Amino acid sequence: MLAHRLIERKRDGGRIEPGEWRALALAYAKGHVPDYQMAALLMAVYLRGLDRGETAALTEAMLLSGDRLDLDDLDRPRIDKHSTGGVGDKVSLVLAPLVSSVGVAVPMMSGRSLGHTGGTLDKLESIPGFRTNLTLAEARDQIEKIDCALFGQSPEIAPADRKMYALRDATSTVESVPLIAASIMSKKLAEGLTGLVLDIKRGSGSFLPELPRELELAETMISLGADHDCPVVALITAMDRPLGRACGNALEVEESILALKGEGPPDLMELTYALGAEMLVLAELATDIDTARRTLEKAIATGRAAEQFARIIEAQGGNPGVIDDPAVLPQAAECELFVAPRRGFIARIEPKAIGRGVVEMGGGRMRLDDIVEPSVGFVITARPGDWVEAGEPLATIFARDRTGIDTGKQTLRTAIRIADEADPPLPLISHRITAAGAMPWTDEPRQPEPEIDG
Amino acid sequence: MLAHRLIERKRDGGRIEPGEWRALALAYAKGHVPDYQMAALLMAVYLRGLDRGETAALTEAMLLSGDRLDLDDLDRPRIDKHSTGGVGDKVSLVLAPLVSSVGVAVPMMSGRSLGHTGGTLDKLESIPGFRTNLTLAEARDQIEKIDCALFGQSPEIAPADRKMYALRDATSTVESVPLIAASIMSKKLAEGLTGLVLDIKRGSGSFLPELPRELELAETMISLGADHDCPVVALITAMDRPLGRACGNALEVEESILALKGEGPPDLMELTYALGAEMLVLAELATDIDTARRTLEKAIATGRAAEQFARIIEAQGGNPGVIDDPAVLPQAAECELFVAPRRGFIARIEPKAIGRGVVEMGGGRMRLDDIVEPSVGFVITARPGDWVEAGEPLATIFARDRTGIDTGKQTLRTAIRIADEADPPLPLISHRITAAGAMPWTDEPRQPEPEIDG
Repeated sequence: MLAHRLIERKRDGGRIEPGEWRALALAYAKGHVPDYQMAALLMAVYLRGLDRGETAALTEAMLLSGDRLDLDDLDRPRIDKHSTGGVGDKVSLVLAPLVSSVGVAVPMMSGRSLGHTGGTLDKLESIPGFRTNLTLAEARDQIEKIDCALFGQSPEIAPADRKMYALRDATSTVESVPLIAASIMSKKLAEGLTGLVLDIKRGSGSFLPELPRELELAETMISLGADHDCPVVALITAMDRPLGRACGNALEVEESILALKGEGPPDLMELTYALGAEMLVLAELATDIDTARRTLEKAIATGRAAEQFARIIEAQGGNPGVIDDPAVLPQAAECELFVAPRRGFIARIEPKAIGRGVVEMGGGRMRLDDIVEPSVGFVITARPGDWVEAGEPLATIFARDRTGIDTGKQTLRTAIRIADEADPPLPLISHRITAAGAMPWTDEPRQPEPEIDG
Repeated sequence: MLAHRLIERKRDGGRIEPGEWRALALAYAKGHVPDYQMAALLMAVYLRGLDRGETAALTEAMLLSGDRLDLDDLDRPRIDKHSTGGVGDKVSLVLAPLVSSVGVAVPMMSGRSLGHTGGTLDKLESIPGFRTNLTLAEARDQIEKIDCALFGQSPEIAPADRKMYALRDATSTVESVPLIAASIMSKKLAEGLTGLVLDIKRGSGSFLPELPRELELAETMISLGADHDCPVVALITAMDRPLGRACGNALEVEESILALKGEGPPDLMELTYALGAEMLVLAELATDIDTARRTLEKAIATGRAAEQFARIIEAQGGNPGVIDDPAVLPQAAECELFVAPRRGFIARIEPKAIGRGVVEMGGGRMRLDDIVEPSVGFVITARPGDWVEAGEPLATIFARDRTGIDTGKQTLRTAIRIADEADPPLPLISHRITAAGAMPWTDEPRQPEPEIDG
């Protein structure tokens, strides 16, 4: 009868106490509370909200429903980065080797793609042999040895969250700030971190398109981190266009390797440095952002970061030859240039349309048991604000057959809008939020983006 | 993906179209929409509401998910009564034989008890042999022959409602006006009625204790009836105390038989006549309420109503000897008087506490598969407003053993409050609502209630 009472209370706008959240999360993880009761409660939470104390209690309850990665005897700082997800967002693949190559332990637990956004695990698995289903013991051993492991949420971690996340997806209760915050933080806190950097996406391709809710999400997660002595810093970054050029699993691995060699697209490099510098400062391996950034630039220039990626790939059963030869990756059977149908400014490159196109071409999943084709996707060289002439190449389509090429063309015709005028795109980074509050991001980008910006 | 989209739309305060409700109800009845999605939708409906058009579409969708009782070739008017449920409410047992004895066909489909309110089916089944699980064909044949059948909702009737009702009970989404209205009306319209009288309970023992929501419920059901050429009249009646004296299955059958002989408690007689007169006017067998009432009084005085009950009991396999000899009913092993612990006015007889007491003594169910003990319950002779002396008998407790007697005493000690002053109880009937609107009930009761009324 517990669930029944709690649903009723939340439905009427009341408060659920910490002990009740704990009992509920445990009972749900064990299958003693049916999905239909949890679904009704989630909808009541979606519409009535949770206060800060309830969000903290739910986070704690989900964390306690499972195991933690025990890294307490490690002598190094343990910092992770989490992104709310976007199209072309391969920052994790660059950041984890880069930051772990300079003395920070990075226990990076990631998810799979679902819907229009890609998943780090799917990208990594396009490297032949790469194994992401490490046990917690394997992950810990690997982090002890080489400072980094890239793995999936094991069944031992926050099982209540795992079940609840799948249920939220099926019941249209995903886009709730307290539920998102509690879900992310219960998993991240299970990594035994000493600090966390958040990349909160903003714009039409993000899960929470309105800025006030993104700031609320950042503040909620910072406060949840503080409850567990895990300082959190958040950047609000642009997802009104894809990040970088490559969208598609193997294509994004290839672009990430380029970035680790200093040759990635400017926006990817810039965001990687910005997030990485925050990680180094949280790790107390640099006193300020500028020093931290120079450390990272050096790790890339010396090849140390790329070597660290090879080490991680090898440790997880993958072919490290991919670092020097992208042909090791699965190759698309067909590829074709996509050219501008008219002259004008690139007014929009709509991330959701691009992401859905990749899924339709077989490179993502609409259901958790869909099989992903790693080779397909797009490399989009045009950027919002660019002036283009009719017939000028904007992108390359990679597909498994001619039908896929047609789908890709159709996708790009819809997703890329050319017009006589173009509004400026969102700034790559717009806010930095810490426990002290939210500040607009005022720094001039060190490597200016190539677009014509307002 | 249908359910997913509809949940999202309702969550955001949008509207679900008639075709969508139909598709959803059918898919849910067939098991193609999982309970957890329906639970999320129900909570969204609970919190966001349904407009009149949506409520009509949901009613129609649930009605069309199953069969109807086909009485179209019957030459008599077909009128039913529905009550929103209360403690001691045995009106159906009196009304169905009474009204069907004067030329109205009464196809009365009823429910089982759940929670603190009793169920007509459970009461009837305390008559040895009485069978309520008639098929639709059996019910139709019996109505053709003897004008009345008293039966349970068969699996063929509104299966979407049947599933949804059980789910609402488990997910705290019962007390929603549009969901209650659609659930009741989808079943009642499946009875093939030419008119319907509603008894909407008001006061602490009712499901919707606030008057504005009861009026809304009445108006919603009247409008749903109008959509299907089924005129509906509603009375708002008191459930701030039990109706009549008997609370408990066999005890209520005994009291109903007394009422059919004109010897029931005044409030039960009064409400039966009021509802029955509305049925006769809807049936066009009387031009006005007063004439209708005289017809009913005569049917009772001549014994015709009691004979009709005997006929119904016999047709459904029960022992009609119960009409002349209540000892045919299951008898409680133990009974004991309950006396006033102090002098004063009877300030409250709390129906929920009484109803829960009957359940605790074994006479009801908290789960649908609980087995009901028919003999237990209370006969409460005290009425709110009565002056009583310490030691004066207030009630008789009927139980299966001494533990039950103790539970009964504990129940009455809590449920019956004696004080130096007593607020007047609610009027037995407070409003009459028709398609023309709601009117306060101003008639003087023809048989005044025995309580001291304010």
